[in-house]
Amino acid sequence: MAIFLRAAALSALLPASMASAEPQTVSWDIVAGLTTEIGPRLAGSPAEARARDWAAARLRKLGFSNVAIEPFTVRSYVRGEDRARLTAPYEQPLAITALGYSGTTPDKGIEAELVYFPTMDALRAAPAGSLAGKIAFIDHAMKANQDGSGYGPFGAARRQGPALAAQKGAIGTVIRSVGTDSHRVPHTGVTTFPEGVTAIPAGAVSNPDADLIARVAKQGKPMRLSLMLTGRTTENLPSGNVVADLVGRDPSLPPILVACHLDSWDIGTGAIDDGAGCAIVTDAALRAQRDGKALRTIRVLWAGSEEIGVFGGAAYAEKHGSEPHALAMESDFGAGRIWKVEMKLGAQNKPMAERISATLAAMGIVTGRDMAGGGADVGAIIAKQKLAVIDLAQDGTDYFNLHHTADDTLDKVDPALLEQNVEAWTQVLSIVANEPGPIAAE
Amino acid sequence: MAIFLRAAALSALLPASMASAEPQTVSWDIVAGLTTEIGPRLAGSPAEARARDWAAARLRKLGFSNVAIEPFTVRSYVRGEDRARLTAPYEQPLAITALGYSGTTPDKGIEAELVYFPTMDALRAAPAGSLAGKIAFIDHAMKANQDGSGYGPFGAARRQGPALAAQKGAIGTVIRSVGTDSHRVPHTGVTTFPEGVTAIPAGAVSNPDADLIARVAKQGKPMRLSLMLTGRTTENLPSGNVVADLVGRDPSLPPILVACHLDSWDIGTGAIDDGAGCAIVTDAALRAQRDGKALRTIRVLWAGSEEIGVFGGAAYAEKHGSEPHALAMESDFGAGRIWKVEMKLGAQNKPMAERISATLAAMGIVTGRDMAGGGADVGAIIAKQKLAVIDLAQDGTDYFNLHHTADDTLDKVDPALLEQNVEAWTQVLSIVANEPGPIAAE
Ligand SMILES: [Zn+2]
Ligand SMILES: [Zn+2]
Ligand SMILES: [Zn+2]
Ligand SMILES: [Zn+2]
Repeated sequence: MAIFLRAAALSALLPASMASAEPQTVSWDIVAGLTTEIGPRLAGSPAEARARDWAAARLRKLGFSNVAIEPFTVRSYVRGEDRARLTAPYEQPLAITALGYSGTTPDKGIEAELVYFPTMDALRAAPAGSLAGKIAFIDHAMKANQDGSGYGPFGAARRQGPALAAQKGAIGTVIRSVGTDSHRVPHTGVTTFPEGVTAIPAGAVSNPDADLIARVAKQGKPMRLSLMLTGRTTENLPSGNVVADLVGRDPSLPPILVACHLDSWDIGTGAIDDGAGCAIVTDAALRAQRDGKALRTIRVLWAGSEEIGVFGGAAYAEKHGSEPHALAMESDFGAGRIWKVEMKLGAQNKPMAERISATLAAMGIVTGRDMAGGGADVGAIIAKQKLAVIDLAQDGTDYFNLHHTADDTLDKVDPALLEQNVEAWTQVLSIVANEPGPIAAE
Repeated sequence: MAIFLRAAALSALLPASMASAEPQTVSWDIVAGLTTEIGPRLAGSPAEARARDWAAARLRKLGFSNVAIEPFTVRSYVRGEDRARLTAPYEQPLAITALGYSGTTPDKGIEAELVYFPTMDALRAAPAGSLAGKIAFIDHAMKANQDGSGYGPFGAARRQGPALAAQKGAIGTVIRSVGTDSHRVPHTGVTTFPEGVTAIPAGAVSNPDADLIARVAKQGKPMRLSLMLTGRTTENLPSGNVVADLVGRDPSLPPILVACHLDSWDIGTGAIDDGAGCAIVTDAALRAQRDGKALRTIRVLWAGSEEIGVFGGAAYAEKHGSEPHALAMESDFGAGRIWKVEMKLGAQNKPMAERISATLAAMGIVTGRDMAGGGADVGAIIAKQKLAVIDLAQDGTDYFNLHHTADDTLDKVDPALLEQNVEAWTQVLSIVANEPGPIAAE
């Protein structure tokens, strides 16, 4: 009885977050460590530099060899103050975030008529010059899908919308966040102004704020917006990759490359994007040699500056493009359940592919019929070396509730799903890193 | 075929928010109107004044008589800049909101050691003077309950925590939001500094930020916090109630009083707290006479300045305390499903109570065994006149995900649940407003 009373008394003193034990895994340690001890780590920032040091120290401690920080410089966006409010027909503060590479407003902001476009197509149809002196608002209707397929088409509002509006004379652009949540946490991400198009201030408002603008637009009354986005695009900022090896029994065989990205957007803490990815690939690499060293070297790449233009992936391909690689994989879609595997493997690797399918099928993971593409950070090395690729597709139904928002925090990582990811990756790495024969895409 | 093609083409041009038809009800109109055309309406602010004018015009348009704005003045809190960040052992920005009546930091903020208390009890146990020059952090473990019962006990961290810390020497207090969500949207609300206790800066961080602080505290490294809360408590700000009647067939009978509050916290738009309440009681009052006038007058009270100290309820009781009332009800717990009715009715009203129970039971609403209490805004008139009371209890499982946050927006109101509320209220008002005999609490 006494022991029950003591447990009750203790738990009354402990908040929920501390009363529950944290998982004792390498993967949890990494994602908890990055989000707790580093937090936001924007490409080119001092925090990203701290993250590189943290990563190198952690990888050494975990037993990796050849741990290296490989520096490069980037053009990045340094956030300032982000504010917006409707000033007509109603006074309403809006939750806004600047997009990466947004143009800069004066410190006091700008104020102008706000023109509502329900879709990118509607903006495309606007006559040349019709937005002169105005701010464009671009709406869309992105919905959550398991495979994340809404992000490509609806993300155009973010990637190309501001430039398109600028070309029609707009002095600013605001978009509905490219996200599927209903919280006042707008989604950032880069926008692109092509050569010859002057960058205009560009931001995203949260979905509830976009709903408000849509309702007001429906009333047909002229809208005005006050917009202050004082961040600046800045050249030559320091960034870098962290690369480390688990050297195989036969170091002469081309290594298996597994990647994630270390940088995160500055408004969240990079838990699901992409602390979880680094956690998954690193823990799985270690577990793949729990019964002794694997035959092949497994190399982990924690890439820098992915978010603002995949600079780390390009730097890796440049530096390591002449070293042979066997196969590349990346984890950069959160920490949801792995539900599908896609492979890009040549005919001679069919027996290995069948073993992978069978092993994953036992975990409820289906083999898809599409060609594996790899992730952003391994894209350049895959293209350069025409590498074999395996994709472990994660369930992304909730991903765009959190992606690139302030809500990307550790509590969003489910330890059980993280563990499912690590185990699926471990199964795949155990097979491919012990394959003695050639591994090739064709 | 043509018509299908056109519909498809049109819907491709329309975002989701505009493609779905809005409900055509008085209740939806009110909550959509208040959140869209007014938005945040803090007690004592110009927005609250606009809301009173909006309310009076809307109630007149809806056919109410004796529509009156009844002014009073209040001591309220005018928000400034709210910022906080951990500066040691890790640099981490935090999502914070000042509590109402917080003390004011210098414009550049304060920086000090942050001392972690897992519970209010732990803070109570801290020795006198032990917080001199420090900032207290108060954690807790509030969970979501259908009846909202966590808010009372765990809300003590917000209501009394800052004053308690101040009495032990603290120069600032930060609490875990009194809320049950996991978003970077901290929950505000008033805190109280008793006579003789100097107000210190006091804010709430979001749950993910509180989780972070708890994790760092667990590591045992000293923490430091930079805190900037520049808002100010301000005296003699204009506020007021809006009162309106649906005059009954027998105006000599004491009226039924139904209340909500018009003011909202400034960081959200007051959709569930308490635009929905005003929508529900007003629509139900109108529907209760859809088959002809009710016997008794139904009076609606859209109270001002509830959030900062229930000033509207006190002003109503002062101004109308000598007029007889039959019964009071209030809706101020969101827009969740009504699941229970509680009554405070005398023995002579037993037949009426049984009819109410039977009618609501047909809607799946249970009759509870507790004494009805009424809401905050009718508390003073109930106490003064010992009024009969009926409470229609709403499901509050999700309420403290949104309450007093930026996320209190229109999209959180489910039209079907709002309609269920209005129908339950209509049933009850149809019975009580047509009761010819005396209605009394005892
Ligand atoms: Zn990513
Ligand atoms: Zn990303
Ligand atoms: Zn309320
Ligand atoms: Zn409230």
